[in-house]
Order: sequence, then structure tokens, then C-alpha cells
Amino acid sequence: MNKSIFYHAGCPVCVSAEHDIINLIGRENVEVVNIGENRARIPEAEKAGVNSVPALVTPNGNTLHINFGASLADVKG
Amino acid sequence: MNKSIFYHAGCPVCVSAEHDIINLIGRENVEVVNIGENRARIPEAEKAGVNSVPALVTPNGNTLHINFGASLADVKG
Repeated sequence: MNKSIFYHAGCPVCVSAEHDIINLIGRENVEVVNIGENRARIPEAEKAGVNSVPALVTPNGNTLHINFGASLADVKG
Repeated sequence: MNKSIFYHAGCPVCVSAEHDIINLIGRENVEVVNIGENRARIPEAEKAGVNSVPALVTPNGNTLHINFGASLADVKG
């Protein structure tokens, strides 16, 4: 896995962070996943250690929680 | 200002995030500032909107709080 994955849920904090991350690391280096719409990806995000969105899972598997938009519990609820 | 600034305080969460950020955006694109040691930089971090470390201030001035190491109040205290 060479791309980072940016998980978000469409919240304003998420959208702002998405723009910053894409500016910083380049659109071609990050897959953007809206787990609010694409709920089938929620278990994978949880498995990667995502507790809140927005979050960036790096190519080496570390999870960086960025600012705070919503907890995963809220997205699931 | 073309570089991002990564503020940290030497905590384990900070060190881990620093490695991830450097891997993602490149060492030449980020200035690393330890505000635990370099306390003169604390006011500038606060002015940039840094509430906790580690945090990354992007070239366009947005502050991304990454995971959570320590609040600025703790670093100052």
C-alpha cells in the first residue's frame, strides 16, 4: 500500500482538512473516503485505528487524527 | 511562507507524528520546532491557533492538530 487514505464524513472540519492534506501531500498520493456515504468502509477504518474523522492513515499504517470533526460513534449512530 | 511548521514538545505522540509528517510531505518542506525546549516560539504557535501539540501549521496558515500529545497549557505550565 503506497497511498495514504483520508477518511472523512463530509463535515466542514473534514472538508477543510482534506484540502490541506491534498495540498501538502498531493492528490495522487491520497485516497479520499467518505465513510458517512460509503458506510461499507467503516469497519476498515475502525480496524486501522480511526477513532474520529477526519483522519489520515499513512502508507505504513499509522493513523493521524486531524483536528476533530466527528467521532466514529457519531458517524455510525 | 512556503514551508509548513511542525510544533511539538518532545512527547512520544509528537515524535511518532513528526516521523509520519516528514515521510508524507518531505523534510525539506517542514520546519520542526520543539516548543518545550524553544519556549520563545510558544507565542507564535498560539497566534497560529495551535491549541495542542503535535500540530502542523500549513503554508497557507491553517493549523492541523494531529492526534494529541499535550495541550499548550501543559507545555507552558
